Amino acid sequence: MLITKSQVKYIQSLGHKKFRDTEGVFVVEGPKITGELLRAPNMRLRAAYGLREWIAALPKDGLPAFDKRVAGSLVGEHGIMEVAPAELHRLSALTTPNQVVAVFEKPVFPDPSLTTGLFLVLDGLQDPGNLGTIVRLADWFGVDGVLCSPDSADVFSPKAVQSTMGSVSRVPVWYEAIEPVMRSAAGMPVWAALLQGESLYGQTRIRRGFIVIGNESKGISPALQELAMHRITIPRIGEAESLNAAVAAGIVLSHLVG
Amino acid sequence: MLITKSQVKYIQSLGHKKFRDTEGVFVVEGPKITGELLRAPNMRLRAAYGLREWIAALPKDGLPAFDKRVAGSLVGEHGIMEVAPAELHRLSALTTPNQVVAVFEKPVFPDPSLTTGLFLVLDGLQDPGNLGTIVRLADWFGVDGVLCSPDSADVFSPKAVQSTMGSVSRVPVWYEAIEPVMRSAAGMPVWAALLQGESLYGQTRIRRGFIVIGNESKGISPALQELAMHRITIPRIGEAESLNAAVAAGIVLSHLVG
Repeated sequence: MLITKSQVKYIQSLGHKKFRDTEGVFVVEGPKITGELLRAPNMRLRAAYGLREWIAALPKDGLPAFDKRVAGSLVGEHGIMEVAPAELHRLSALTTPNQVVAVFEKPVFPDPSLTTGLFLVLDGLQDPGNLGTIVRLADWFGVDGVLCSPDSADVFSPKAVQSTMGSVSRVPVWYEAIEPVMRSAAGMPVWAALLQGESLYGQTRIRRGFIVIGNESKGISPALQELAMHRITIPRIGEAESLNAAVAAGIVLSHLVG
Repeated sequence: MLITKSQVKYIQSLGHKKFRDTEGVFVVEGPKITGELLRAPNMRLRAAYGLREWIAALPKDGLPAFDKRVAGSLVGEHGIMEVAPAELHRLSALTTPNQVVAVFEKPVFPDPSLTTGLFLVLDGLQDPGNLGTIVRLADWFGVDGVLCSPDSADVFSPKAVQSTMGSVSRVPVWYEAIEPVMRSAAGMPVWAALLQGESLYGQTRIRRGFIVIGNESKGISPALQELAMHRITIPRIGEAESLNAAVAAGIVLSHLVG
């Protein structure tokens, strides 16, 4: 069956945050992450366009519930449609499409318990790859959620979702003005990763609180820095001016939480 | 002055590793990293093609020596050529060119002292962004060099160089069959970061040795694992299957070296 122009247009429109937000869905590409998300109990597939080889490798049972609303012409008992390589190319944002393009609904999570959990706070993180990598490591370290300032990268952008390696299905990520949220959780300890601060090493392990990571070039805004009880830094031995934001977040988590 | 077709072709050819290797040069884009490399004492500029605003912001003195061999038509006392936006576009590999495209010679370092230094060893690391990020953090932690298996990504590829944020001028990175090199440095302790191993936490700090990081999906090859005296792992609390390779390298370095 051929894909329609409107299907192609719809998928392409999801490259824009505005349409992802309106539709409540996002796109992933490639068998690895699509498979991860298909297996995730809280993910709902809207549509998957896959090459014959991808469909042949699917498990015959155990595909979770999905929703056929997206495309009237979708067929198949799992909302999965076989496409030819040329058709996949039309749907894909990659120069080399990778077997499947899939549309999932954004996952829904229960409201996080702000006063008992452990949260990463991202203040204007710009790079989608960094954001996805941070969500992945938040998942590794059992962080309860990632709070992003509204000017941060969108975790449902193709690059960010891909970098989460599936962790986007397990870690709540939400966008909200950071300061009011943190002020509303009075008594929660706040750690800020800065270039100038106390050494990260030898800090006692924490189980609750906010750990704030700043923008790749500007760091953490002064207003947020003031909320931080603990200003910590990763001691530098060599000469690099700074560390990649996701690497810094990983190092901080491993010492504070690991 | 107009850039010539052969200049455009030359710069574009440097997108390929083969030509970078033959020519001994590489390309960077953007004022930040170009500025970093211009200030680095061991870097030699071959040519820089910049917009008027970029050239105007250059320091009037203190530009290091450079070599005019690359393009006969190059003018200006520092091998720097002013180009119009449309010309920059022709030279740039980016969809949105960023003020300057520059060609530098690959830096030359003294041979590393294998038996006294501290080295990262990358076994088939594939992603150029990961590689550059690792070189940057090696610089932060004062690592003496990064040994890459020949099938690893090229540190002089545009994406990798960019991710080093200038650390490519300070950290020796070399490509060689890993096993013979490690065997030749008898007595050097070897640490391997694995998904199954002893906990990384509570290890004593090291000042010399090899720290091996594996391929993003396959990890460390069995032959190399056998050389490792210390098999270490970053304990997992949550559910992610793995960590990004650069993040893992950062966490390991911070606990072993930091």
